[in-house]
Amino acid sequence: MEKKNLLIAQSGGPSAAINATLAGVIAAAQKSPAVGRILGSRHGIEGVLENRCVDLTDFSRLDELKATPAMALGSCRFKLPADFSDPIYEQIRKRLAELQVGYFLYIGGNDSMDTVSKLSDFYAGKPDAPAVVGLPKTIDNDLPACDHTPGYGSAARYLAMTVEELIRDTAIYALPSVTIVEIMGRDAGWLTLAAALPRLRGGSKPDLVALPETPFDEQAFLQEIRDRMQHTHNIVAVVSEGIRDSSGAYVGSAAKSGAVDTFGHAYLSGVGKYLEGLVKREIGCKVRSIEVNLMQRCAGHAASLTDLEESFAVGAYGVSMAEQGVSGRMAVILRDEGEVYRSHCSSVDIRACANKERPVPQRWTNLEDSQVCREICDYLLPLIRGAAPQYRDEYGFADYVIFE
Amino acid sequence: MEKKNLLIAQSGGPSAAINATLAGVIAAAQKSPAVGRILGSRHGIEGVLENRCVDLTDFSRLDELKATPAMALGSCRFKLPADFSDPIYEQIRKRLAELQVGYFLYIGGNDSMDTVSKLSDFYAGKPDAPAVVGLPKTIDNDLPACDHTPGYGSAARYLAMTVEELIRDTAIYALPSVTIVEIMGRDAGWLTLAAALPRLRGGSKPDLVALPETPFDEQAFLQEIRDRMQHTHNIVAVVSEGIRDSSGAYVGSAAKSGAVDTFGHAYLSGVGKYLEGLVKREIGCKVRSIEVNLMQRCAGHAASLTDLEESFAVGAYGVSMAEQGVSGRMAVILRDEGEVYRSHCSSVDIRACANKERPVPQRWTNLEDSQVCREICDYLLPLIRGAAPQYRDEYGFADYVIFE
Repeated sequence: MEKKNLLIAQSGGPSAAINATLAGVIAAAQKSPAVGRILGSRHGIEGVLENRCVDLTDFSRLDELKATPAMALGSCRFKLPADFSDPIYEQIRKRLAELQVGYFLYIGGNDSMDTVSKLSDFYAGKPDAPAVVGLPKTIDNDLPACDHTPGYGSAARYLAMTVEELIRDTAIYALPSVTIVEIMGRDAGWLTLAAALPRLRGGSKPDLVALPETPFDEQAFLQEIRDRMQHTHNIVAVVSEGIRDSSGAYVGSAAKSGAVDTFGHAYLSGVGKYLEGLVKREIGCKVRSIEVNLMQRCAGHAASLTDLEESFAVGAYGVSMAEQGVSGRMAVILRDEGEVYRSHCSSVDIRACANKERPVPQRWTNLEDSQVCREICDYLLPLIRGAAPQYRDEYGFADYVIFE
Repeated sequence: MEKKNLLIAQSGGPSAAINATLAGVIAAAQKSPAVGRILGSRHGIEGVLENRCVDLTDFSRLDELKATPAMALGSCRFKLPADFSDPIYEQIRKRLAELQVGYFLYIGGNDSMDTVSKLSDFYAGKPDAPAVVGLPKTIDNDLPACDHTPGYGSAARYLAMTVEELIRDTAIYALPSVTIVEIMGRDAGWLTLAAALPRLRGGSKPDLVALPETPFDEQAFLQEIRDRMQHTHNIVAVVSEGIRDSSGAYVGSAAKSGAVDTFGHAYLSGVGKYLEGLVKREIGCKVRSIEVNLMQRCAGHAASLTDLEESFAVGAYGVSMAEQGVSGRMAVILRDEGEVYRSHCSSVDIRACANKERPVPQRWTNLEDSQVCREICDYLLPLIRGAAPQYRDEYGFADYVIFE
């Protein structure tokens, strides 16, 4: 069998599991009789154009790579042009030919799948076409055509754990207080659902949960806080960064866009700070907003074992797709039927997911319904199951894999 | 031996280790022939005044309590009046007599030690005086007369781990970026030193470290970023919330005080957001600020085993002080001489610490000196050593102790 080289790259935002997928690709490629050299492109497609690759053929620190958060190969935010006559396509083709690439695997989210889609379309019918395969990753869990995305389970585990700790922290004073926790998610509330797990599992908090899928009504939010304050002193709200009002405008965007400090400088803040100000003015109690920020996507120390193992499996599955000459498709995780959680890999046409999003189903936005809460738990809990191996020294410092 | 009852309470801000001290008190008191009932006052001294106590005499979940973050008994922010003729003192005295309290242990920080100091002074010479003992806790590590404070090691471990993950996250793009991480600490930079551990141990990041102990110069900060950008693309700065300019004013306070949004509402944000705006205006690259917020003080999942064990030992030591009739003193952790880290408990006059603070020594603010970095590591690393037991289920949910 003639061996061809495999090129792997990462793109989009980081997660705690995207390197597990990279490790899965490397492990499977090292065992494959069809793969010659394994090349890692630095900073996504940019490294292909700029000739910045690392040779991973003999890379051996797979376990540590699996546990390293963010992207060991680096990322990019690069959109290929729609016009295939743009010279960039021939540049890429020339580079891949020089590198003797027969398999090109690209790990990323919705936007990155656009690159996979365009490259496979560009190569269609060309004799030197490599197999172009997409491997999913996004903490947002908003890719269509799959059960869930690699990276989501780890972010979800971190958020559930952190919100439970924040609930403990906010409970200590007898005085009324409101704590607003701002969670990532511009268009989908999957991460905020994970932050709501302490309540979904049967607790009373977080008291309020606001998802982008449901129009946000400031007056209803304030009234809900007032009502709940009759029964509890420490209100905790988990709020997606992308909540919108009934007109579709991001909550607080009108106030933010013109905000200036005394020197006339624009202020920069998210919906959490906006709601903090709103509650402070309208209710007047102690209010605090917390933006969980990058920690929710890079907290490898709290990664889900299930997530890391599935992310690894997705990488290995992508290699088997490429070996079989599959192109223009993305690997996905699907859930098996049955009581006990099991998953398997499959693939979907890249056009089913490139540039597309999957919101939380409308039915799952009604957390007052205990049956809905059970359904969400049944969906979510298996994804955050198990603590990942840490590869840390006694001081908590991890043995991360870093490609310079 | 006539048994007397022991009253224990918690006050001030939470930490991941303050319940370990509570557990140490309960464990030692349960073994003590001098202690009858063990009473936990809810919400500090307020629970004494309002007759809200829980009976801990037969409490058995000590291991889970040790691993529960924040304050299981609740907290308060209550300052006793300076005038001992204020009726509140006789109210407290009456309550303690009714409860037959012979030992009153109070866990807290600088402000809480003021309560211990005043109560022991009030009781001086009175026949019914209980032993009033202070037990330290503060993530800020700013209590004088000790080597370090219970709670600091856990916050430090969380911060070092989190900043190392943030460094990974910010490294993925090839474009220049500045990430400003705002760390707790109004007056002392101990927590920010912990956040700087990835560099202190020999790494190159965080690139900039700003402590309250050193006057902050905005122009020098910007110049340092520009200089470092010649050699690295992802600048990471760790900054204490309490940094001040040469006049002693909090950095950004002038801008903040008058900031309004388009509706004329005041904006609420810290030094991180202020510096984000400054760098964005003056340098113009991608900038992000991250406030680690409450997570740094309640992240029990990342607690230091050394910290939890020492915090437990401090609690037990406090009981032995009280049994011996010691009053008006605070238990402290001191470091043994010698190469291998060991610590022991001792006690100091409460006046040596009540309302007093301990900044980072001036010598330790110069992180350009590699000898200084080694000294800080020698000081800090033993305090963050060891992962604490988790008492978590397979989904990461902890079996917390909660007194309602």
